[in-house]
Amino acid sequence: MSSEGPKRSGRRPGPTTTRDAIAEAARRQFAELGYDRATFRGIATEAGVDPALVVRFYGSKEALFREVMALPPLVAEALASLADGPRATVGRRLAEVVVGMLEDPRSRDIVLGRIRSAASHPDAAALVRETVTRDVGSLVAAVTDDEPETRAVLVGSQVVGLALARHVVRVEPLASLPAGDVIEYIAPAFQQYLVGPLRTVVETEG
Amino acid sequence: MSSEGPKRSGRRPGPTTTRDAIAEAARRQFAELGYDRATFRGIATEAGVDPALVVRFYGSKEALFREVMALPPLVAEALASLADGPRATVGRRLAEVVVGMLEDPRSRDIVLGRIRSAASHPDAAALVRETVTRDVGSLVAAVTDDEPETRAVLVGSQVVGLALARHVVRVEPLASLPAGDVIEYIAPAFQQYLVGPLRTVVETEG
Repeated sequence: MSSEGPKRSGRRPGPTTTRDAIAEAARRQFAELGYDRATFRGIATEAGVDPALVVRFYGSKEALFREVMALPPLVAEALASLADGPRATVGRRLAEVVVGMLEDPRSRDIVLGRIRSAASHPDAAALVRETVTRDVGSLVAAVTDDEPETRAVLVGSQVVGLALARHVVRVEPLASLPAGDVIEYIAPAFQQYLVGPLRTVVETEG
Repeated sequence: MSSEGPKRSGRRPGPTTTRDAIAEAARRQFAELGYDRATFRGIATEAGVDPALVVRFYGSKEALFREVMALPPLVAEALASLADGPRATVGRRLAEVVVGMLEDPRSRDIVLGRIRSAASHPDAAALVRETVTRDVGSLVAAVTDDEPETRAVLVGSQVVGLALARHVVRVEPLASLPAGDVIEYIAPAFQQYLVGPLRTVVETEG
């Protein structure tokens, strides 16, 4: 948390802690308000800095969103390394990463901010589409070559639904379940989406 | 569409077509803006009526939301009758109802309006929780007595995720898939959530 170097971007960076404070405030504002209702001013106020500083650091709201709403490196690495383990347990291991990501307030804010933004404003949807495709797409491509894009979206759709039901709408009993139970419950769906047969052989529709 | 009688509620009802026009406008506004940003004035404008008429018909925004965001009777009946068919295909049949519901613009607006409302404002979350629990809960209770509430929320979470990914964020290839393919893809997850074993026997967590 303390020793990541500031980005070299041509501008003179402020201390990392200020940049971190702005990033945290931005994540919370995006998570609570969605992309269109979050403002430089509101983010600056929450971070306790001048709005001009936020503009100087990030330039545009889109650039700010892109940077602070990227998954934390640990989560991204955990996702990427799932392909290395046994195929028979990949759904379960993905469930562990996803549920763990949603238990941590920082990465949960990122996920919820993406969802709120995509759901509240069409302009933000493209941004969200891009981030989700990148994060889940590489994992799926590594475990199967049978319709990987479709499988990635199916996984993503269940992640979004879980995040909303458990952490936003807080539907019981899901909202109060221990993380370990949630992992158990969604692991089979993930396993199916990742490596199960997508099409059944049944051909009996009317 | 034309011959449903107006509700007898003590007030003198307007013609059914006016009430229908208001209900349709309200569904679109809730679906596009979410609960907190939809207004009597905006709904009245879209329906081409005086705002006072909307207030007279529905009283409060909450009452309006409750009435127009109830699932259409045909969908509610289709959900309720799923329990009568064979257990081995209940996931598939649920997928058919859910995907069909999302293909129809009117019921899709209802689903999206609930999601946008729940995601955009905490006050609307309770309303949405209530409607989802009622709609899916009775089906699940009819097919199993093993943690029916949990199963209902799991199904609901996948419905929400599907609706968002396919119809709001429009992530490809999911957004362009024929309905029949989507049914195939999500049927196994629904089957698992409805009647599959919720807990695996594996007990090897660290």
